[in-house]
Amino acid sequence: MRKRYALIAAVLLSSAAWSQDAADLSAVHKIKHEGLENSQVEEIAFHLTDASGPRLTNSPGYQRAAEWAVGQLTEWGLKNAQLEKWGEFGKGWQTEKYYAAMTEPYYFPLIGAPKAWTSGTNGPISGEVVLMNATTEEDLAQYKGKLAGKIVLVKSTAETAPTFEPDGTRLTEEELLEKGKQPIGHSSRYTPEFIAQYRARRALQQKIGAFLQEENAALIIRGTRGKHGTFFTSNGASYQGDAEPALAEIEMAPEHADLMARLLEHDQPVKLEADVQTRFFDQDLGAYNVVAEIPGTDKNLKSELVMLGGHLDSWHAGTGATDNAAGCIVMMEAVRILQQSGLRPRRTIRIALWSGEEQGIYGSRNYVKNHFADQATMQLKPDHSKLSAYYNIDNGTGRIRGIYLQGNDAVRPIFEAWFAPFKDMIDHPTVTIQNTGGTDHLGFDAVGLPGFQFIQDPIEYGTRTHHTNMDVYERLVKEDLQQMAVIVASMVYHTAQRDEKLPREPLPQPEKSMFE
Amino acid sequence: MRKRYALIAAVLLSSAAWSQDAADLSAVHKIKHEGLENSQVEEIAFHLTDASGPRLTNSPGYQRAAEWAVGQLTEWGLKNAQLEKWGEFGKGWQTEKYYAAMTEPYYFPLIGAPKAWTSGTNGPISGEVVLMNATTEEDLAQYKGKLAGKIVLVKSTAETAPTFEPDGTRLTEEELLEKGKQPIGHSSRYTPEFIAQYRARRALQQKIGAFLQEENAALIIRGTRGKHGTFFTSNGASYQGDAEPALAEIEMAPEHADLMARLLEHDQPVKLEADVQTRFFDQDLGAYNVVAEIPGTDKNLKSELVMLGGHLDSWHAGTGATDNAAGCIVMMEAVRILQQSGLRPRRTIRIALWSGEEQGIYGSRNYVKNHFADQATMQLKPDHSKLSAYYNIDNGTGRIRGIYLQGNDAVRPIFEAWFAPFKDMIDHPTVTIQNTGGTDHLGFDAVGLPGFQFIQDPIEYGTRTHHTNMDVYERLVKEDLQQMAVIVASMVYHTAQRDEKLPREPLPQPEKSMFE
Repeated sequence: MRKRYALIAAVLLSSAAWSQDAADLSAVHKIKHEGLENSQVEEIAFHLTDASGPRLTNSPGYQRAAEWAVGQLTEWGLKNAQLEKWGEFGKGWQTEKYYAAMTEPYYFPLIGAPKAWTSGTNGPISGEVVLMNATTEEDLAQYKGKLAGKIVLVKSTAETAPTFEPDGTRLTEEELLEKGKQPIGHSSRYTPEFIAQYRARRALQQKIGAFLQEENAALIIRGTRGKHGTFFTSNGASYQGDAEPALAEIEMAPEHADLMARLLEHDQPVKLEADVQTRFFDQDLGAYNVVAEIPGTDKNLKSELVMLGGHLDSWHAGTGATDNAAGCIVMMEAVRILQQSGLRPRRTIRIALWSGEEQGIYGSRNYVKNHFADQATMQLKPDHSKLSAYYNIDNGTGRIRGIYLQGNDAVRPIFEAWFAPFKDMIDHPTVTIQNTGGTDHLGFDAVGLPGFQFIQDPIEYGTRTHHTNMDVYERLVKEDLQQMAVIVASMVYHTAQRDEKLPREPLPQPEKSMFE
Repeated sequence: MRKRYALIAAVLLSSAAWSQDAADLSAVHKIKHEGLENSQVEEIAFHLTDASGPRLTNSPGYQRAAEWAVGQLTEWGLKNAQLEKWGEFGKGWQTEKYYAAMTEPYYFPLIGAPKAWTSGTNGPISGEVVLMNATTEEDLAQYKGKLAGKIVLVKSTAETAPTFEPDGTRLTEEELLEKGKQPIGHSSRYTPEFIAQYRARRALQQKIGAFLQEENAALIIRGTRGKHGTFFTSNGASYQGDAEPALAEIEMAPEHADLMARLLEHDQPVKLEADVQTRFFDQDLGAYNVVAEIPGTDKNLKSELVMLGGHLDSWHAGTGATDNAAGCIVMMEAVRILQQSGLRPRRTIRIALWSGEEQGIYGSRNYVKNHFADQATMQLKPDHSKLSAYYNIDNGTGRIRGIYLQGNDAVRPIFEAWFAPFKDMIDHPTVTIQNTGGTDHLGFDAVGLPGFQFIQDPIEYGTRTHHTNMDVYERLVKEDLQQMAVIVASMVYHTAQRDEKLPREPLPQPEKSMFE
């Protein structure tokens, strides 16, 4: 009999430990209903991608999206919706014309885009193309004095062979089990090796860039990673307010750049015509995040915060649908769901859509510095004690399959309890102790605030969408966005309702950001 | 004992039946050596794709490729290399400028190409875009009187959702076994249903085209099949010598066409600028195949023929690498191997690179009519009795996995014997009784001449390359082209050496071609 009592006691204890953070099933029901029956993800997606266009930080496209978001959040009933300046960024920039075609040995139009923050061609140009082969600084010597006024082509190193693996994938049960078992460690692409390689590549590119600038080339064309008309793109010059204008530079589909490269390697002259117009915006070098709130309703807790967000800025050759309109769609839809489902959160819920992420996670890191703490000094501001958690989405359109604990063991049972009512919407929900990096939760994490990102299905993120010209509306998966919005809304709501803030890790030591 | 003798007799008989068509292993060794050690497939590929450009029938690109092929075949030592007129085709055509960009609500360059044989815009144009939604003839009425001078956009019906299947595939053992077991029947895409649907679609498109022409629209833009920057394209107007000029018409990547369509569906005005120049070539409406020969060396057999070929013409938005430079590369390399490996074929071997395939298999069908027989009357020419076989390649870059017998049971043991020494180069060689259609062996088959196509691995043919703008050099797989060239060279050689011509099926009845 004692044994039986012990068993009952154990069940009660475990049940008590569980129930401390049990999900509020009535709230979950309302959230699911609003998110699945009245979904607005398609409309939000349209406005952030198609209607806004590319959303490079400080560009008119970013401004359109940010202003639409402020208006829409206000219309839904959120409070204090505004563009909040986070600091000085630099110049905005956009493409105002892109045209390039091979004209000899025959006419062939060329898929590409100017690299961000590069200059235009100052009207149509045409001329012979010169092939440049430089993998080290020493390779540059042979071109000295030969490139003035020339169109210089750098061959691609892209892998363009046929693909026998799918572009799109979802995480398998095995992969999730493995992720759940792995010890803490960055699963981020920003490994020390990545950063070292990145810096070495950047150093060489800066030397090549300086050389071409000195030689006064007319236009640089680079074959870039990608295939089948998809190409990856990023920035080609400084956005600093006082930066000197950089040369005109096109990133081009590797098939098209290498067509010309092969012709030149066969000593067949290649002529090209191009007309690239780009425009800088330097009236306001300051940069802005979008913020808005659902005020808390508990008089003791409403001064405390739960935050959710994702970066609104994108690269410039697509409309940044998966990187990261997706995250913004989900977060906007999540607050819409909470606002419209009639739930009354105890803590204040604040959404933030960041800018400057693509250039160094600037918007969120500066927001953290302005509101919570300076990572370099670890001087804390009063609100540092008020934030329960920050939730981020920035891994594309794929549905949530779990969450990264960022080493914070104490939140595991809490998140497990909050995932429990979503067995119908998440296959194999996985809570892993691992860190994930590369985006806007890092600034929170770096000052000891619980900042989390979700495990998401990759879909076509690495193969087709992340930083490509083809990261457009079509790449979004409606059902996955809906699932994410519902789950995030629930996580945020439960964080807002919990008696205590989420457990924190010990405060970290002051540290300079690795991006500086 | 009698039983034992019977068994021995059976073995001897079977062995005799087999050895009648055993492969000449010494010849196979020479062919493999030349094809694998001295391969020229990359150089041939460069010249037929990169150096020639798009090879639309009667275009300058076709002419460049055809003339290069004549010169190269002659240089290799083939005889009678020439452009041979097959009849009247119509006008040549090429793109001389393609530029299109959305300019409102923001600037966005648009990936596309003019449809073949459509007109240009007669200089740069710009204006508002009108969305047209017509799936039946009746839908046209609402647009009457509203389209004069307008840029008219037809939304795509493309499937652009993420892909969880690979773009590239190879045939599995199971698929090959299944193919080997299936009864005769077209595995062609030209099924009766396909042809019926094709005719219905064409009829509607012709009505829409006539309507737009009557309304005098300035430019038509159609979102087409494809994704990720790949789009499928074909012809948009008549190439007949006396055809009236058709409207300017662009086929566009579905993501870009549908970006504008979604904006218009949200009542957001869209402006576009475009500059499309196309050029017609009507000095010579006649059209030409490339032919060349390795003369036979056996005085009794050298007047007989073995032919091999593939179509050289392509669509216009890529460089037709897999459709069908691949077939021409393989066939040119096969005759180079035979010529340079010092083998002395008994029968004459003739290579033919066809034109007009994409518009109705015209080059090869007319060649058959000119040299062998008229399908409509079944009147035979003297050479009808001289041709042993015609081998064709037109299913992309994928390696040979077997051959279609086109219902000709009698050649099965022959082909099986000839495939036998290639177990190192073909996994699961499959000889199927099935028909395959859609290309240049059909004209031979239709007049009772043994015309064959090979079973090939699909690679990315259906997903990325067949009739797309991304059918370019990068889509070719060198090792697969080498394998095909070696196997084709051997098949052709053994056909040239065989005492008898290949067995034929009974002569078919006169029949009008289904393409007329």
